[in-house]
Amino acid sequence: MRILLAITLFAACTAAASDAPRARDLGIPFDGTPGELNAITDVAGVTVGHVTLIEDLEDNKAVRTGVTAILPRGPASKSVNVMAGWFSLNGNGEMTGTAWVEESGFLEGPVMMTNTHSIGAVHEGTIRWRVAQSGPDHTGYFWSLPLVAETWDGDLNDINGFHVRPEHAMQALDKAQGGPVAEGAVGGGTGMICYEFKCGIGTSSRVTTIGDAEYTIGVLVQANFGKRDLLRVAGVPVGQRLADDSSAERAAGATPEHNSIIIVIATDAPLLPNQVKRLARRAALGLGRNGSIASNGSGDLFIAFSTANEAAGRGEIDATISALPNDEMTPLFRATVEATEEAIINALVAGRDMRGHLGTTVPGIDHRRLQQILRDYNRLQKGD
Amino acid sequence: MRILLAITLFAACTAAASDAPRARDLGIPFDGTPGELNAITDVAGVTVGHVTLIEDLEDNKAVRTGVTAILPRGPASKSVNVMAGWFSLNGNGEMTGTAWVEESGFLEGPVMMTNTHSIGAVHEGTIRWRVAQSGPDHTGYFWSLPLVAETWDGDLNDINGFHVRPEHAMQALDKAQGGPVAEGAVGGGTGMICYEFKCGIGTSSRVTTIGDAEYTIGVLVQANFGKRDLLRVAGVPVGQRLADDSSAERAAGATPEHNSIIIVIATDAPLLPNQVKRLARRAALGLGRNGSIASNGSGDLFIAFSTANEAAGRGEIDATISALPNDEMTPLFRATVEATEEAIINALVAGRDMRGHLGTTVPGIDHRRLQQILRDYNRLQKGD
Amino acid sequence: MRILLAITLFAACTAAASDAPRARDLGIPFDGTPGELNAITDVAGVTVGHVTLIEDLEDNKAVRTGVTAILPRGPASKSVNVMAGWFSLNGNGEMTGTAWVEESGFLEGPVMMTNTHSIGAVHEGTIRWRVAQSGPDHTGYFWSLPLVAETWDGDLNDINGFHVRPEHAMQALDKAQGGPVAEGAVGGGTGMICYEFKCGIGTSSRVTTIGDAEYTIGVLVQANFGKRDLLRVAGVPVGQRLADDSSAERAAGATPEHNSIIIVIATDAPLLPNQVKRLARRAALGLGRNGSIASNGSGDLFIAFSTANEAAGRGEIDATISALPNDEMTPLFRATVEATEEAIINALVAGRDMRGHLGTTVPGIDHRRLQQILRDYNRLQKGD
Amino acid sequence: MRILLAITLFAACTAAASDAPRARDLGIPFDGTPGELNAITDVAGVTVGHVTLIEDLEDNKAVRTGVTAILPRGPASKSVNVMAGWFSLNGNGEMTGTAWVEESGFLEGPVMMTNTHSIGAVHEGTIRWRVAQSGPDHTGYFWSLPLVAETWDGDLNDINGFHVRPEHAMQALDKAQGGPVAEGAVGGGTGMICYEFKCGIGTSSRVTTIGDAEYTIGVLVQANFGKRDLLRVAGVPVGQRLADDSSAERAAGATPEHNSIIIVIATDAPLLPNQVKRLARRAALGLGRNGSIASNGSGDLFIAFSTANEAAGRGEIDATISALPNDEMTPLFRATVEATEEAIINALVAGRDMRGHLGTTVPGIDHRRLQQILRDYNRLQKGD
Repeated sequence: MRILLAITLFAACTAAASDAPRARDLGIPFDGTPGELNAITDVAGVTVGHVTLIEDLEDNKAVRTGVTAILPRGPASKSVNVMAGWFSLNGNGEMTGTAWVEESGFLEGPVMMTNTHSIGAVHEGTIRWRVAQSGPDHTGYFWSLPLVAETWDGDLNDINGFHVRPEHAMQALDKAQGGPVAEGAVGGGTGMICYEFKCGIGTSSRVTTIGDAEYTIGVLVQANFGKRDLLRVAGVPVGQRLADDSSAERAAGATPEHNSIIIVIATDAPLLPNQVKRLARRAALGLGRNGSIASNGSGDLFIAFSTANEAAGRGEIDATISALPNDEMTPLFRATVEATEEAIINALVAGRDMRGHLGTTVPGIDHRRLQQILRDYNRLQKGD
Repeated sequence: MRILLAITLFAACTAAASDAPRARDLGIPFDGTPGELNAITDVAGVTVGHVTLIEDLEDNKAVRTGVTAILPRGPASKSVNVMAGWFSLNGNGEMTGTAWVEESGFLEGPVMMTNTHSIGAVHEGTIRWRVAQSGPDHTGYFWSLPLVAETWDGDLNDINGFHVRPEHAMQALDKAQGGPVAEGAVGGGTGMICYEFKCGIGTSSRVTTIGDAEYTIGVLVQANFGKRDLLRVAGVPVGQRLADDSSAERAAGATPEHNSIIIVIATDAPLLPNQVKRLARRAALGLGRNGSIASNGSGDLFIAFSTANEAAGRGEIDATISALPNDEMTPLFRATVEATEEAIINALVAGRDMRGHLGTTVPGIDHRRLQQILRDYNRLQKGD
Repeated sequence: MRILLAITLFAACTAAASDAPRARDLGIPFDGTPGELNAITDVAGVTVGHVTLIEDLEDNKAVRTGVTAILPRGPASKSVNVMAGWFSLNGNGEMTGTAWVEESGFLEGPVMMTNTHSIGAVHEGTIRWRVAQSGPDHTGYFWSLPLVAETWDGDLNDINGFHVRPEHAMQALDKAQGGPVAEGAVGGGTGMICYEFKCGIGTSSRVTTIGDAEYTIGVLVQANFGKRDLLRVAGVPVGQRLADDSSAERAAGATPEHNSIIIVIATDAPLLPNQVKRLARRAALGLGRNGSIASNGSGDLFIAFSTANEAAGRGEIDATISALPNDEMTPLFRATVEATEEAIINALVAGRDMRGHLGTTVPGIDHRRLQQILRDYNRLQKGD
Repeated sequence: MRILLAITLFAACTAAASDAPRARDLGIPFDGTPGELNAITDVAGVTVGHVTLIEDLEDNKAVRTGVTAILPRGPASKSVNVMAGWFSLNGNGEMTGTAWVEESGFLEGPVMMTNTHSIGAVHEGTIRWRVAQSGPDHTGYFWSLPLVAETWDGDLNDINGFHVRPEHAMQALDKAQGGPVAEGAVGGGTGMICYEFKCGIGTSSRVTTIGDAEYTIGVLVQANFGKRDLLRVAGVPVGQRLADDSSAERAAGATPEHNSIIIVIATDAPLLPNQVKRLARRAALGLGRNGSIASNGSGDLFIAFSTANEAAGRGEIDATISALPNDEMTPLFRATVEATEEAIINALVAGRDMRGHLGTTVPGIDHRRLQQILRDYNRLQKGD
């Protein structure tokens, strides 16, 4: 029997998002020019839906988990594919559907993120949603190799309780929308931890010009990795300073070795599958800027897609495809590195103190302390 | 509401297996020397469990599906890993857990096989089984990146009914045993079709000598691929003959383009992860002997493991590992190709006429007709 | 000092080619419809050049080697790239340039084939040829990551004499032409051995229709692999019959374990880089039909390219690209498997007895004996 | 005709190395504990040889190039292999021999580095050296798939003059030795450029403890990449400061887009091939710390090897292998990231102004200016 102490089921909660300061609101400097929302949804058509499960159960058990859905083309994603590529920097994690991404060059359907033990529920829910939405494709078939990724939230969440069910995945898909994206302890990021601070979902974007055209790169991370002392923010060794600092709270009961990061990269630049994969690999460089060493327990899996080439995404036999020459891709690489760097710090900055499963508590990073350290290294951009 | 016309839940049904003729019982010639059972279970420690779901529902719907579990080390598989490698010949399929196989070189836990839309249920069931069986590992963690593979049985099975549930996966794991392995329409193979004939699970093995030691290669396939005219048996163009033959029944309503094959290769030879992956790639050559072209819709995914090096599988820091030099591996490659070739034909020969979902009927291959064609090409080994 | 007993430097010697029977001239049956020449040059624009070095030196040393150049777009290959992909079935070999093929999706320049110890000379010669031909590209750069592949001819050739020089690569490039392609002991195939018979270069093609369009697949192999007993021809276990047959000559002094096969697949079908790579993987299935087990010592490396999408090959920023949907690719897979199967048998059939380095002699396969065996299995298509 | 203005042929020039300040001599802070020499040669057995070609020719042409050889086991490398793995972060470069590294899990012989157009000469020279050194291996064969990597020095060097010859590779191999390693404009690094400053060879090492054992990670880079403004040193945005700084000299005539980095990682920790590959991937994170975006033109190729398991390296059939469990690898990942970060900055700091081909001049980074910028960000460790 469950004693329901509190239950909360959120959709993407944009109001909350707009109140909370993001990394650059604190004066943390980043390179490059973000899009209007500084979010993956700056890439036209991309929608994001979060389902957040927060509940306290008897016996000190706690639910702190959820599902995040990213639809590359919004509702059209169920029938119009996107060219895609993936990369495993450290494969201690799950990302289903990648064999077909690699083979076909397409991502068919959404990117789903949840906790490690809920891959199954979300996989089933994603197929159920596809079947419920519409009929089979022109070959008489339903796509059914969904992409579902995970990070491990078993420190804060009763992961062996299997609280995410297929309907939560369906809800996340139904509620996906454009606009500002909630960060921190929402959706798949609800119970996640970075550098021994509360973390979760973070996002960022960059706008870049190639020839006459302007392109957007959007990144969204479900971040859950790293020992404290590795943390670098804007190149400043924040983690080392905080590791030496007895005033800095630490996660109590958490096991940083089992953490991971999923990075999703969207772009409207016209790129072929092998080119989108090149973007996926660059996420490693953004991660490196923040001090990651991709520890053994960290499943660092990245997926990138391009929303261009809609006719090819529909499987039209005479589709005309456009793609940038490889020689023109460098600005997109830079944008990917920069947006990844910032999305991770956004996830960290959005973290708030959380008490979870079996009483484990994880502090959010102290914004004033973080600003002070950056100021010590002459890297804070504005007074606060 | 369901009208229960018939329900059958099988475990590995060895009695049935011993009655049915296998490919070499029909006089079909194969190269190499099989093990005692000519099955994957000839590799010591490997156990196999089938859960078979056969049920007729109202509205002409039908359940023809199931789950097959392969435990590399039998019950010890939940805590002792095996060195492993995988290969995607055509990635139009799902095999979860492969990012960690590739990264770590180990398969942690069983190989599970089911239908495409039941990946989620079996994934959850496999983690539930692990959690129920015993506590976390020495790092405080449960392995939770199970390997679950699929082929598409939507021609004979109500695949959108999601009839496989997590408990079916748990049952398949619990019932896994050594000894003879049931073939054909059992477990994950229940609703599968090859070359437009009823097909499913097939297995075979080879014994080979390297230096002073004898090693066994065992192969098990969940076979579900191929257009009729491509079929070659022992090199004989059986498919072309049957394609021209009005007396040969054809699958009614089936869509051969969405089929696939999962190939599992086990060995007791001591091999490092990269060497086991070499075995996985060789399965393509065995498949090629039977005429496959790895059509676009075919998810041809192969996983290989070695049951040697148990101490390393336990994660002991001072484990002593043994491995054959690469120079000595050729006999294992030959054995893999040969056992793959035979396991597929065993799956085909084990097929029996089946009526399934929405009345689709698929014939088993006619053994006498098959023998006659081989006789026409001077390739039948004994009179029958 | 060299005693020059005989020296021969051939270009593509089409007259010779037209006199010698090819596999289907002997009545060996193959599937599918070949192009006009049944050669890789059936793909419009592809040219092939052979430089053959045959010389007897003092001390019983012998030169039996050469270079083969394949230009995907003929002379335009130096500035117009082709979309390409590669696959390593067994990486015991060299194919330079593949990191960039994989990254960029393009092959820049020709495919070069030679012996193992002449990779360096041909690599340098290919860059020298590019520099001599014309100026840098629009970025001020010369492409300089040529693709050079090899198989080991050290049984028949004085491989440690480094007889291939950069100028031989340049000659092969200069002499490349369309039309019939010489097979057997020519170019890079001069000293090669298959199934313990003299072998070398072989080629074949297939024509297939997709939608309203006709596409050609062309395959060229430099074949140098396999133990005698593995040989299957049109599914017939020829090798086993010849292995038991004291009348069949065997290679004296040859070491079948160090052999390899390079497979080159060309098509005019419009395909993206990841799709061309799919073709490369299918070559394994054609190889499998002929009995290969990809033994440890065999470097089995395959490269595929598409001559479509010329504007993209020129690096134009607004190039319009066309590509078949993945769903339409199956006929190309079938064509690749079939043409690979036949190209290998063509290389074998073109083999003639050769005496080489240190007196090693390798017999060509006896055509009448081969026909008789096929006849025994009711697989010879016409009387001879 | 050549007018010989100056010719210099260096071997590893250790005296010079000890005079020049390295990055940490300038007070640049790095994480972790270096080995005694802070060089790849801290890994016992590893030897390094440089051949440096510096010559001024007529018509303002200039030779600024060379060869660097790394022997994993010193002279024994010709017959005793090392377990190895490689990774391509951006495949716009050549590293021959990788198909066999990936397949076999072993690197057979040395790691060779040179310029892009000298891959052929060094490839041939490396095989010639092997043939000259000793007889074939126990299978009657010479290894002959050498690993040769490159970066492009065509800004400072007359790259189309093909000045590196096979004998230079042989000399580099012969002269390889342990002890301090010369950095900067030596060997393969002679004409290389980073962040628009003179660069070349750099090295570093880390010592780490796992269980009771101490292990060493050594890194050596041939660094030749990056636009000025991307440069980060110890997290400080040095490049941005110097990009804004009219006093900072810039490379005149150089084309930063065609640059690259080769990273070689050595360890004495016992690791299986797939584990060594994990190290190779981590080099990307060290590169990321210094601001790299892996631009399109940058061939970023990494090779890692372990000198443990000598018996397996000899191909002994009953070799006993040891390997750390994956769970214990994280300290090695950290060490790899840290040593890579420092090796690159060492290459940069070792750079001195150079005038080269067609008058192109490239400045070395100004040490005092670099120190001042770090001081501005409170990141300089000691006064200077």
